[in-house]
Amino acid sequence: MAKKSKTLPIYVLNGPNLNLLGRREPDIYGRTTLAEIEQMTVQRADTHGLSVVFRQSNHEGELIDWIQEARTKSTGVIINGGAYSHTSLALHDALRALDHPVVEVHLSNPFAREDFRHHSRLSPVAKGVIVGFGAQSYVLAIDAIASLIKGSAG
Amino acid sequence: MAKKSKTLPIYVLNGPNLNLLGRREPDIYGRTTLAEIEQMTVQRADTHGLSVVFRQSNHEGELIDWIQEARTKSTGVIINGGAYSHTSLALHDALRALDHPVVEVHLSNPFAREDFRHHSRLSPVAKGVIVGFGAQSYVLAIDAIASLIKGSAG
Amino acid sequence: MAKKSKTLPIYVLNGPNLNLLGRREPDIYGRTTLAEIEQMTVQRADTHGLSVVFRQSNHEGELIDWIQEARTKSTGVIINGGAYSHTSLALHDALRALDHPVVEVHLSNPFAREDFRHHSRLSPVAKGVIVGFGAQSYVLAIDAIASLIKGSAG
Amino acid sequence: MAKKSKTLPIYVLNGPNLNLLGRREPDIYGRTTLAEIEQMTVQRADTHGLSVVFRQSNHEGELIDWIQEARTKSTGVIINGGAYSHTSLALHDALRALDHPVVEVHLSNPFAREDFRHHSRLSPVAKGVIVGFGAQSYVLAIDAIASLIKGSAG
Amino acid sequence: MAKKSKTLPIYVLNGPNLNLLGRREPDIYGRTTLAEIEQMTVQRADTHGLSVVFRQSNHEGELIDWIQEARTKSTGVIINGGAYSHTSLALHDALRALDHPVVEVHLSNPFAREDFRHHSRLSPVAKGVIVGFGAQSYVLAIDAIASLIKGSAG
Amino acid sequence: MAKKSKTLPIYVLNGPNLNLLGRREPDIYGRTTLAEIEQMTVQRADTHGLSVVFRQSNHEGELIDWIQEARTKSTGVIINGGAYSHTSLALHDALRALDHPVVEVHLSNPFAREDFRHHSRLSPVAKGVIVGFGAQSYVLAIDAIASLIKGSAG
Amino acid sequence: MAKKSKTLPIYVLNGPNLNLLGRREPDIYGRTTLAEIEQMTVQRADTHGLSVVFRQSNHEGELIDWIQEARTKSTGVIINGGAYSHTSLALHDALRALDHPVVEVHLSNPFAREDFRHHSRLSPVAKGVIVGFGAQSYVLAIDAIASLIKGSAG
Amino acid sequence: MAKKSKTLPIYVLNGPNLNLLGRREPDIYGRTTLAEIEQMTVQRADTHGLSVVFRQSNHEGELIDWIQEARTKSTGVIINGGAYSHTSLALHDALRALDHPVVEVHLSNPFAREDFRHHSRLSPVAKGVIVGFGAQSYVLAIDAIASLIKGSAG
Amino acid sequence: MAKKSKTLPIYVLNGPNLNLLGRREPDIYGRTTLAEIEQMTVQRADTHGLSVVFRQSNHEGELIDWIQEARTKSTGVIINGGAYSHTSLALHDALRALDHPVVEVHLSNPFAREDFRHHSRLSPVAKGVIVGFGAQSYVLAIDAIASLIKGSAG
Amino acid sequence: MAKKSKTLPIYVLNGPNLNLLGRREPDIYGRTTLAEIEQMTVQRADTHGLSVVFRQSNHEGELIDWIQEARTKSTGVIINGGAYSHTSLALHDALRALDHPVVEVHLSNPFAREDFRHHSRLSPVAKGVIVGFGAQSYVLAIDAIASLIKGSAG
Amino acid sequence: MAKKSKTLPIYVLNGPNLNLLGRREPDIYGRTTLAEIEQMTVQRADTHGLSVVFRQSNHEGELIDWIQEARTKSTGVIINGGAYSHTSLALHDALRALDHPVVEVHLSNPFAREDFRHHSRLSPVAKGVIVGFGAQSYVLAIDAIASLIKGSAG
Amino acid sequence: MAKKSKTLPIYVLNGPNLNLLGRREPDIYGRTTLAEIEQMTVQRADTHGLSVVFRQSNHEGELIDWIQEARTKSTGVIINGGAYSHTSLALHDALRALDHPVVEVHLSNPFAREDFRHHSRLSPVAKGVIVGFGAQSYVLAIDAIASLIKGSAG
Repeated sequence: MAKKSKTLPIYVLNGPNLNLLGRREPDIYGRTTLAEIEQMTVQRADTHGLSVVFRQSNHEGELIDWIQEARTKSTGVIINGGAYSHTSLALHDALRALDHPVVEVHLSNPFAREDFRHHSRLSPVAKGVIVGFGAQSYVLAIDAIASLIKGSAG
Repeated sequence: MAKKSKTLPIYVLNGPNLNLLGRREPDIYGRTTLAEIEQMTVQRADTHGLSVVFRQSNHEGELIDWIQEARTKSTGVIINGGAYSHTSLALHDALRALDHPVVEVHLSNPFAREDFRHHSRLSPVAKGVIVGFGAQSYVLAIDAIASLIKGSAG
Repeated sequence: MAKKSKTLPIYVLNGPNLNLLGRREPDIYGRTTLAEIEQMTVQRADTHGLSVVFRQSNHEGELIDWIQEARTKSTGVIINGGAYSHTSLALHDALRALDHPVVEVHLSNPFAREDFRHHSRLSPVAKGVIVGFGAQSYVLAIDAIASLIKGSAG
Repeated sequence: MAKKSKTLPIYVLNGPNLNLLGRREPDIYGRTTLAEIEQMTVQRADTHGLSVVFRQSNHEGELIDWIQEARTKSTGVIINGGAYSHTSLALHDALRALDHPVVEVHLSNPFAREDFRHHSRLSPVAKGVIVGFGAQSYVLAIDAIASLIKGSAG
Repeated sequence: MAKKSKTLPIYVLNGPNLNLLGRREPDIYGRTTLAEIEQMTVQRADTHGLSVVFRQSNHEGELIDWIQEARTKSTGVIINGGAYSHTSLALHDALRALDHPVVEVHLSNPFAREDFRHHSRLSPVAKGVIVGFGAQSYVLAIDAIASLIKGSAG
Repeated sequence: MAKKSKTLPIYVLNGPNLNLLGRREPDIYGRTTLAEIEQMTVQRADTHGLSVVFRQSNHEGELIDWIQEARTKSTGVIINGGAYSHTSLALHDALRALDHPVVEVHLSNPFAREDFRHHSRLSPVAKGVIVGFGAQSYVLAIDAIASLIKGSAG
Repeated sequence: MAKKSKTLPIYVLNGPNLNLLGRREPDIYGRTTLAEIEQMTVQRADTHGLSVVFRQSNHEGELIDWIQEARTKSTGVIINGGAYSHTSLALHDALRALDHPVVEVHLSNPFAREDFRHHSRLSPVAKGVIVGFGAQSYVLAIDAIASLIKGSAG
Repeated sequence: MAKKSKTLPIYVLNGPNLNLLGRREPDIYGRTTLAEIEQMTVQRADTHGLSVVFRQSNHEGELIDWIQEARTKSTGVIINGGAYSHTSLALHDALRALDHPVVEVHLSNPFAREDFRHHSRLSPVAKGVIVGFGAQSYVLAIDAIASLIKGSAG
Repeated sequence: MAKKSKTLPIYVLNGPNLNLLGRREPDIYGRTTLAEIEQMTVQRADTHGLSVVFRQSNHEGELIDWIQEARTKSTGVIINGGAYSHTSLALHDALRALDHPVVEVHLSNPFAREDFRHHSRLSPVAKGVIVGFGAQSYVLAIDAIASLIKGSAG
Repeated sequence: MAKKSKTLPIYVLNGPNLNLLGRREPDIYGRTTLAEIEQMTVQRADTHGLSVVFRQSNHEGELIDWIQEARTKSTGVIINGGAYSHTSLALHDALRALDHPVVEVHLSNPFAREDFRHHSRLSPVAKGVIVGFGAQSYVLAIDAIASLIKGSAG
Repeated sequence: MAKKSKTLPIYVLNGPNLNLLGRREPDIYGRTTLAEIEQMTVQRADTHGLSVVFRQSNHEGELIDWIQEARTKSTGVIINGGAYSHTSLALHDALRALDHPVVEVHLSNPFAREDFRHHSRLSPVAKGVIVGFGAQSYVLAIDAIASLIKGSAG
Repeated sequence: MAKKSKTLPIYVLNGPNLNLLGRREPDIYGRTTLAEIEQMTVQRADTHGLSVVFRQSNHEGELIDWIQEARTKSTGVIINGGAYSHTSLALHDALRALDHPVVEVHLSNPFAREDFRHHSRLSPVAKGVIVGFGAQSYVLAIDAIASLIKGSAG
């Protein structure tokens, strides 16, 4: 296992309304809160010798700020863009400017929902996409990005 | 009359460029400024023993923050989404996640104007909609939400 | 406050099946009966020094009669066209021939229901529209029309 | 057999121009008059221990009135909406608000006639539809509704 | 000339909003009131030894009733269906069931106006149509129907 | 009554096949011959102090000639364009160039016949249209045009 | 064989430009002149004990005149409508009004030529159609109409 | 210069309503009358030692007759088909069968007017076309056809 | 006749491949050479007291140069754009910027040729168009423009 | 040169991800940083006696705030909307409400890139557009706006 | 500042009809002549120690020649393609083959004008585009290209 | 082998930008210069006893001039029309007027490139087309045209 102290953290970024998880439409998004997801994520990253910076914002601009910050302060980005996934060309651009691995996650399977949730502007600039496993999507994303980081490091 | 101090305020949220009211295209939007509308709104709420948090932002994210904040700090939301009404899926989601009454207002009657103003992404997640009475639309919305609050409290 | 005796009443006209209010699909239309709405409406109008003529009919023709009668016997019309709102060219014509303020009301928010309830033939010939507040929509409409009457009188 | 005196009657409602039966286009509608159909209907109902209230109106509004009256004064409604069947959203709403069994009848088979007679707005809110048997359609409808009433009572 | 007392009258039936004639959009419909048209019509019929029953209703059902009543109480029907001309299948059916002569009239020439006024549901079931002569259209219709009556009597 | 000698006649022009009247498809066009119609027309005009020039031609060009001749030799034109009504741009142009009143007549009601008889190229350039009264259509047209001539003379 | 003197002739009518036959586009229409066709037609009719009236006109109206004349002066009509075949509703009407057998002929096969020659307005009112045999089409038409005349006489 | 007596004339043929020139829509067609155009045409032809047969007819058939007549009695045809230009297949055929030069003229430039005047059924069978010079178009056409006649004679 | 020395010349401009006249496809364009046409044009202009500048170029740009030069050095422009007529927006613009009369000519009748020769970008900015008379088209155009120049000078 | 102290500054506003300049896709956007662009811009403005307020934000709302602020605190606005240029109706509205000159700039030439970068919602509300010169686009925009300001001041 | 004598000039090339500037449609293109623009351009280039070759041609081929000549005799090209901008593939190819900087200019802002002026075939092969500043667009283009030249030289 | 001195040369004509060969986009067009191609072409022609006139121009008009010159001064034409191949109707016409053999060549295979290079206006008037062999296309064209010349001479 790699030493934790030597490695920059993974940025796990969450978009609009995801701070409401566990309270909003639990039959779709599940009952796990974002804080619980953060805990699961941190624990899983730890098994890979990785740390996590876990954040949420309702501001398109702030998410862009964080993606930019991730350029020098992270080794990779996991992003759940929420509703901005479907419309934001600016998030797309911000992610494209990033040299690190990017993994897009969604709790539910958007392809099984309304039409307007079938298209993500972020997918084309992500290395991989994991959708439909609820909170477990994040855990899988940690595994995936850990693998990508080691791969690119190897 | 309920005691004012015991009741959470109503959030009255205004979207982009509405701070220009009274100066921009007055033949459509009227000559009343947003400050005057705020005053009318506060005074009317006072007659219901209610207070008002009256805000305007050009930021989609800030409007979402305020809608979420309104979950615990208000008893209801009145929203004039401005140009975001026609495009923002994120505002729609934020309002849908709110258990409090939501009232959408517009100064002019959109059904008597251009086609693209006939559709609002916010109407389907509002309890009620009041349009066409100029600044008075807000006063009526205060009465409406006061009634909804008492109703749900009753 | 203006003297009641000097002012012509407001006509509040209700279309087909609205007499079933409180009994038909209460989860949509609420439990308040039309008689209770009438009472609320009359009381509210009284606070503006205004009187109300409150009627309901399942007959399209009778509604047209009343709108025509309102030309000389009222200062304004509040109308809930019920199912005729979506189809009646004759009601549209009758309202268009009226010089008084017209306010359209609906108990429920049609934008949150079936597609065929999103379109009203009456909205384009109304000054303003108030929807979604149940019985309270009428009270608000009284305030709105009182304001319009004073405005046009001022 | 249930006792007649204890049971509310069945409402058999007939729409516009059906009072002309036997005189209007007999090659389509047959030569039986509406009075003869009423007699047949009453007799058949009697074999089920049921009574009948048999009415006809050319007024869309009056038909709505009767459907509403049927809420408390009947155990079921048989309706031949005539020409209103193809256009009346208001009759549709009135029938939907009824908890009793509704059976739609037509003398001729509208699907074998002009296109505009293929669509009935009433069918979606009826329990069953019987068409094409001339006056016998009504007799069958009595049998059908009797069965439904017993079924729901059982 | 036939004796007046022995002859059933002509029914002259007018649809919705025609009672507003002379007041509504006079540049299209002229400044003659419906009462003046009635007077002209009665006088003209008198020259034919005929009497007139002149009625106006905003009620589709009432117009149907009158058409049916005309079966036994008139010798012919002149009808200006107003806005119902363009939509009423029930009026169409009622007129079709009539053995008496039917004459459709319009004040203005619809072929020189908007598209939606080019189509009348009543024309196919009328014997003849007279359009474009203002109030004089009614006088001509009286002459026309007098002629038809004599013709069928001959 | 105006003196006959001082007034130019009315031109009554008849298109192709109308000379067969009384013999061709009498169930549609009636049994009156064109000569009888002429006689009726002349007599009726005489009651208005007007004379008539009554002509028929199977030739499109001859009809145009007569319309042009009517510019200086008539006070108005009544035209039954027969089959040319549905196709002739040249007749349309000729009538449009005329300052006198034009009344279009048809013996039968084209709206009760085949689709291709529902459209007339002449109606848009006529003041009024009278259809469906057989020979009597012409008599009515005489009255109508007499009224128009007096009106424009007044 | 029937006696010639007792029988009315067959009318053979030819439309616009057919008088040019033999000179105009002989590769399409052949080199036989209309006079030669007339001769062939007369001779063939003679073998059936029938006489022929053979005419040509460039005037749509004159052709109509002749068709009308044929009502009393012929036992049948053979018509080559030339270019009017494709456009003349008036010829169609004239032929429809005829009780005698009608046979349509064309020298060339219009279905093998330009699109606009594929449709004849005369075919629907003809008993039979013979096309594509050059001058021989007329001879065949004589045979055909002779057969029809005997058939209807039989 | 050729001797006038030896040469056949030029046929100048004018279609429907052109006899109204100078009176109908003078802002489009100019104020020169057809008689004045004839005079200009005759005088110009005279300078070429040519005579003119100048005719106008509202009859499609007469125009065809004249075109056919022109085969033996003229040296060329100038034609302004008026409204028939846009519809007459028979005129097209008649002109196509002519061996003489054909010149089409129009007073105004149709390419600078409404779309439906851009297409002439006569242009494809004309030798040349001259448009846009008002009455002068005819004078030019005389020169043109004089030149064509000499050319073909040379 | 105006004095030649005082008047600016007419520019007669010829487009690509017109220098081949007399050699290229003589069955379409005739056997006259461009030099002969020039001579004819000069002579004809002389009879009007006008001079001619006669040019040909295969270069689109040179044609534009000449049109611009014509602004100050000519009294009018006759143009045969050749193949550029169908495509050149720049020639269109150059002609539109000219205040002098413009006459478009073509040797052959484009309406009797391929479809792509039916449309000219130059016709809408020409006063008149003369087509189909071979070299004579130019002579006619000289007459036409002489007439226009005198007309505008008068 | 005008005195700096007397003139309000120019607002130079930069949209999302432009703070990454010099680091993100340098082959497209160049290697100059936004700070360096600011310095160049300030210096250039100084040569015109103008000062600059230079800002960047990833937040759509903040950009709107600044445009509104520019109403009273600037003499003109230069804007590089970044990715928001292609989608923001709210930025469009904010700019449209501004009376000052607006110049749109882009570092790269969008017409040489992907299709979705060819359309800007801001161009229609800008006075002029300068694209493709990297950092120099801003310097040119300063010159352009200086010229516009002097022009409107002169 | 670089020495003028050592540097190759900038080619400023102008397309068809631009030599008419100041005279053609001055409300769109302004009243400045091309000579004045040349003077402004030369003077501005002088401030950069650069000389200018300023040319205009109506010839597409000459513009191509000049672009090719510019390969060895200039340091950069500024081009206003006029009407050829919208159609010339050959100019596009010539510019694409050039290693020097290319700047496209337009006097007016095409995005605020007709649709067909929104597309330029030259923009994709230009380094930058400057539109909307009238004659000042050229001055800015000089600055822009001076900057590009220095940049590529640095 | 035929004697060289007795034979007119082959014209090898090259369109816009082909003078840049070897320098422009060598991965598409190869590194051979046009001078080298000329040399290859001359040498190959010599083996057939043929001489070559080898030219290039950027001017559409000059290419037309040369094609016309080739009529009398060559025995055949090989043409690479460059970008004009796709748009020039005038080159098409010039080639069509040539009696000599025409061979179209392209260096690259346009069918394997952008859509707008798939269509050549020259191909329909060429005897043969050779594309895709780089400079060798010209050598093959020489062989081909030599064969055609002998063939037509034989």
